[in-house]
Amino acid sequence: MDENGILFVLSGPSGVGKGTVRKELFEQEDDLAYSISMTTRERRAGEQDGVDYFYKTNQQFEQLIADNELLEYARFVNNYYGTPRRYVENTLAAGQDVFLEIEVQGAMQVKDNFPEGVFIFLFPPSLDELKSRITSRGTESQDAVLKRLQEARSEIDMMDAYDYVVVNDDVQKAVMKIQSIIQSEHCRRDRIAKQYKRLLEEVNYDA
Amino acid sequence: MDENGILFVLSGPSGVGKGTVRKELFEQEDDLAYSISMTTRERRAGEQDGVDYFYKTNQQFEQLIADNELLEYARFVNNYYGTPRRYVENTLAAGQDVFLEIEVQGAMQVKDNFPEGVFIFLFPPSLDELKSRITSRGTESQDAVLKRLQEARSEIDMMDAYDYVVVNDDVQKAVMKIQSIIQSEHCRRDRIAKQYKRLLEEVNYDA
Repeated sequence: MDENGILFVLSGPSGVGKGTVRKELFEQEDDLAYSISMTTRERRAGEQDGVDYFYKTNQQFEQLIADNELLEYARFVNNYYGTPRRYVENTLAAGQDVFLEIEVQGAMQVKDNFPEGVFIFLFPPSLDELKSRITSRGTESQDAVLKRLQEARSEIDMMDAYDYVVVNDDVQKAVMKIQSIIQSEHCRRDRIAKQYKRLLEEVNYDA
Repeated sequence: MDENGILFVLSGPSGVGKGTVRKELFEQEDDLAYSISMTTRERRAGEQDGVDYFYKTNQQFEQLIADNELLEYARFVNNYYGTPRRYVENTLAAGQDVFLEIEVQGAMQVKDNFPEGVFIFLFPPSLDELKSRITSRGTESQDAVLKRLQEARSEIDMMDAYDYVVVNDDVQKAVMKIQSIIQSEHCRRDRIAKQYKRLLEEVNYDA
């Protein structure tokens, strides 16, 4: 059965541990293509071009934007970061899944360009702690609880655009959940029915 | 985080191997409650009441229908088969997942009563074989291909009401896919966001 690959996008609040989870996932999964980002930021000690990032000049990067060669891009602290569109599209067409790990802002651009992607929100375990804080109230200032509450609201608002939420309370558990999501997405009826219907059409043409 | 259980319904064409897959799944999963069906058919050698089925008389069964105590029921070969509603609802409310393995007709009734359930269609591997038959056409009569095509169409029409399709080409692989579906469904954003929003409401009430 010929099947296109699926684009998986892992994102979440900064500091939640996206990079760690992504690295561990790739240690365990051979079939997943990781899309290396492009950036104009300087290469740091220990980083390799084509491994950590593709390093580009500002001029090169802006040319790629002009040529619509980026699936998403953003500017943080005066540097561009982006995802090469062509690499992703070619890899999916060849039947391989692509896995992106990007910031929330970029994930939303990818969603606009690739609504058929699967969007996974990595979530800090802190919200679960909220409940125990509340039930033990009195031990914590009302200000601290209100501040935490505000953060929680903004995180929950963020997750609304995603298909899945994985709590990163434990890297191994988070990786296993993402592996389950990858496998089960390949079983979704809408994807499979589309393949079978295409197959039936081929049969009709050949009959 | 308090979470309701999820109702999973495994169904598919007769003879596809639903029972075998379900038994193997339950060998490996301790956290899943299997809802034992009720039936009016006679107990066969080796079967146990409360293990294979709950055996009821026609009169008892019809009283349960009248009392709306069945989530679904059907009549095959003059016997009733059904799923006790109360058991399923109580188990879900206690936070445990329930797994039903039933015929297509019953699955559609459950879908009417429990649209929030997760419906898995177990699919014969024969459709995949269709492609090789077509590519090697000439070796098979056109009638045989057309008959297979008609069967395929009716199976594909059936799958439209389901969330997932698992091809039963290998029992172990089918079980692993179902396990992935179970785990990933617990990560779906709509379920998780609902829990967090309820949690935030509780906080507001307490503040």
